[in-house]
Amino acid sequence: MISVVIIGSGNVAQHLLSAFATNSSISVIQVYTRNKDAKLQDITTEKIIHDWSKLQEADLYIIAVTDQAIPSVSAQIPFQNKLVVHTSGSVAITALDTKNRKGVFYPLQTFSKLKKVDFQEIPICIEAENASDFSIIETVAKAISNKVYAIDSSQRKALHVAAVFVCNFVNHLYQIGSEICAANAIPFEILQPLIEETAAKINTLTPKEAQTGPAKRKDTSTINAHLQFLSDSNQKEIYKLITKSIVDHG
Amino acid sequence: MISVVIIGSGNVAQHLLSAFATNSSISVIQVYTRNKDAKLQDITTEKIIHDWSKLQEADLYIIAVTDQAIPSVSAQIPFQNKLVVHTSGSVAITALDTKNRKGVFYPLQTFSKLKKVDFQEIPICIEAENASDFSIIETVAKAISNKVYAIDSSQRKALHVAAVFVCNFVNHLYQIGSEICAANAIPFEILQPLIEETAAKINTLTPKEAQTGPAKRKDTSTINAHLQFLSDSNQKEIYKLITKSIVDHG
Repeated sequence: MISVVIIGSGNVAQHLLSAFATNSSISVIQVYTRNKDAKLQDITTEKIIHDWSKLQEADLYIIAVTDQAIPSVSAQIPFQNKLVVHTSGSVAITALDTKNRKGVFYPLQTFSKLKKVDFQEIPICIEAENASDFSIIETVAKAISNKVYAIDSSQRKALHVAAVFVCNFVNHLYQIGSEICAANAIPFEILQPLIEETAAKINTLTPKEAQTGPAKRKDTSTINAHLQFLSDSNQKEIYKLITKSIVDHG
Repeated sequence: MISVVIIGSGNVAQHLLSAFATNSSISVIQVYTRNKDAKLQDITTEKIIHDWSKLQEADLYIIAVTDQAIPSVSAQIPFQNKLVVHTSGSVAITALDTKNRKGVFYPLQTFSKLKKVDFQEIPICIEAENASDFSIIETVAKAISNKVYAIDSSQRKALHVAAVFVCNFVNHLYQIGSEICAANAIPFEILQPLIEETAAKINTLTPKEAQTGPAKRKDTSTINAHLQFLSDSNQKEIYKLITKSIVDHG
């Protein structure tokens, strides 16, 4: 049985709590959060603490707070030589305070409070400073996910940028699509199968092989008709830039 | 039994052939294609014709050729007062020659030769000039898809632009993600669950509700770190523009 303390009460903290709750080899013995109004599921209230002096010893401390707070929160842990990991895609392992052993436990997924996820399918990117710590982190990660990868801090930085493109930016294009539909009395659900097929396609084809559409075909008459159709200058600018990028690199 | 002739031999023609082949209420009696080397499945070779004079009478002629060729191909059909539809998202119903009855049969999906699709889940957007023609087109569409929508030419134009954003442009962002991974020795498969969850999420949340990430949080320190990380000027420009769009409208 590996004992874990989670530090934080946001989306990542909650999703980790729910994932560990389904697993008998990991025991979440406490959650520390500054936020006294935090509502957390899959943990009994007496295990939620707001005072560092009540922190218990554990095999692993998982910091799931905002990127900026990671250095100061890790410095506040009132122990030494414990294994402490953060969960951020964009913060180096070295941001953790040096008094404890350092590691990273980065679940690569987009978490919303409102939406359940299947943690088994979420890749967890892990890193540690030595082999025995790596092994503890790996055991905890494999307890909740089938997809555990060793990714160092410099790779994780690249991965996080790539994730912004394929998740946040992609979702913003969905938003533009939904706005165009709304403005023309078209139910956005018509686009959902296309959206899911576009995502599924790259399981079997590279994105370059999978590309279709007017930019790929260099079909300037359709491209010009689309630009003429778009009245929103922001949408137009995005259309132009990505079309140019597909024509040049796609 | 409704008799159908398909005109064309590209991706859309092939996917329609395969879909109709599984249905007993629709009979594809011929395929016309200019291309004598066309390799088509789910149709016997004697039914593939290259000569307009061999064209038989049918209840419905489906033109699945490039957008530009629709007017001339529809003019070459050696019949009058037949029901002729095109399959394009970006061409108005009026592009069809006036000697026949006009309609549109637009399957909203991204078709690749290399990838099978489940036609039942593909929305088909249909349009006709009169109710009885609409009814024939609707019967054919419902024979192969559970998702049939009445969409007029002006809505279809908007829908096609929206589809370019949520499919072609999204796929290009996948390509950029895969390039960043390749440059950093990261397997692109790590991003696949994130990509699929991002697509699935908007089944239950609006894209605006679903948004996460540094731009949404207006986290300028992460944004600046990402811009510094990106060395490719095209990737950098896309990062800047979409980040600005999320900050302003997301």
